[in-house]
Amino acid sequence: MLILASASPRRRELLERNGVQVCVEPADIDEHHADGELPQDYVHRMAVSKCRHIVRKHRGEHVHVLGADTIVVLGSEILGKPQDAVMAMKMLRELSGREHVVMTAVCLINALDGAEESFVCKTIVQFDEISDQRLSRYVASGEPMDKAGAYGIQGGAEGFVKRIDGSYTNVVGLPLCETLGVLEKWGDFLK
Amino acid sequence: MLILASASPRRRELLERNGVQVCVEPADIDEHHADGELPQDYVHRMAVSKCRHIVRKHRGEHVHVLGADTIVVLGSEILGKPQDAVMAMKMLRELSGREHVVMTAVCLINALDGAEESFVCKTIVQFDEISDQRLSRYVASGEPMDKAGAYGIQGGAEGFVKRIDGSYTNVVGLPLCETLGVLEKWGDFLK
Repeated sequence: MLILASASPRRRELLERNGVQVCVEPADIDEHHADGELPQDYVHRMAVSKCRHIVRKHRGEHVHVLGADTIVVLGSEILGKPQDAVMAMKMLRELSGREHVVMTAVCLINALDGAEESFVCKTIVQFDEISDQRLSRYVASGEPMDKAGAYGIQGGAEGFVKRIDGSYTNVVGLPLCETLGVLEKWGDFLK
Repeated sequence: MLILASASPRRRELLERNGVQVCVEPADIDEHHADGELPQDYVHRMAVSKCRHIVRKHRGEHVHVLGADTIVVLGSEILGKPQDAVMAMKMLRELSGREHVVMTAVCLINALDGAEESFVCKTIVQFDEISDQRLSRYVASGEPMDKAGAYGIQGGAEGFVKRIDGSYTNVVGLPLCETLGVLEKWGDFLK
């Protein structure tokens, strides 16, 4: 059995569409960013923490736990989920016409023996110059609110993204090829 | 009014989801590839031909016609739509574990004065190594049959694509930012 330690419906859909059945158990962890912590270290720590948090509830059981966390990094700044529409608009304006990096960390733990594997996947994303009118219409749709960097590439922001370099599903929230690769190596999770 | 000279439901959806209303009038043209014709020249000629074919039926009217064509290029070989499941399987096996280029040509013509603009957009796509079992399951789904290169990145083949370099929507069938850019320059097509 595979437990997904994430509340993101996108991660669940990506896995299930590709033949991996999961049980969802979101982990409620402290997401505080430590001073001076590099973005890749932060996102990695978040994914590992989510995963270990759920593993603690299943220690000794025949289950694997998959944890993941995604951040948007603009320069050296980490953009998490916006707290309100004003912050969403501010983030999207910052992203407009520029390049940023999306990082997803993935962690898999075997609850039986504690064996653990994790990695961080990075994709460069180039936004087109988007008018304030289009950005506000997008913010008004409500879609940005539960998304790192205030956008969903698979949703209403698809027209904002001019090009990417790297994994597309990583930008959606879970690098599929890399994750399926780890799952295949560790067990029989694919239908 | 904007006429889309393409039967592809993906192109129509991409445009309509992004605020561009279209009328669909598929163009039935000779898609024969000329000896020695370069892939980018071929796809460009196809998009322009589709567009002009429909323009001829609307000459002098206040309409614009948008034509597009997408090909998958592996080395110097053009992969079009597969004719049957056997050909689809052959194409997917060739793509597995390798890099190819997706080219979409887009053409916009003003039927009133014949003014024309066109371009070709290229995206590099890297496929993961995919087992025959996964490929046959995908072929059996029927999805490959109406798609250049026998796959849809937005559908059941999303797990095959490890990384891309360039426009994602170009791989779906229409480079959205570039197309919206031309439409914005030429008229008031966006809602």
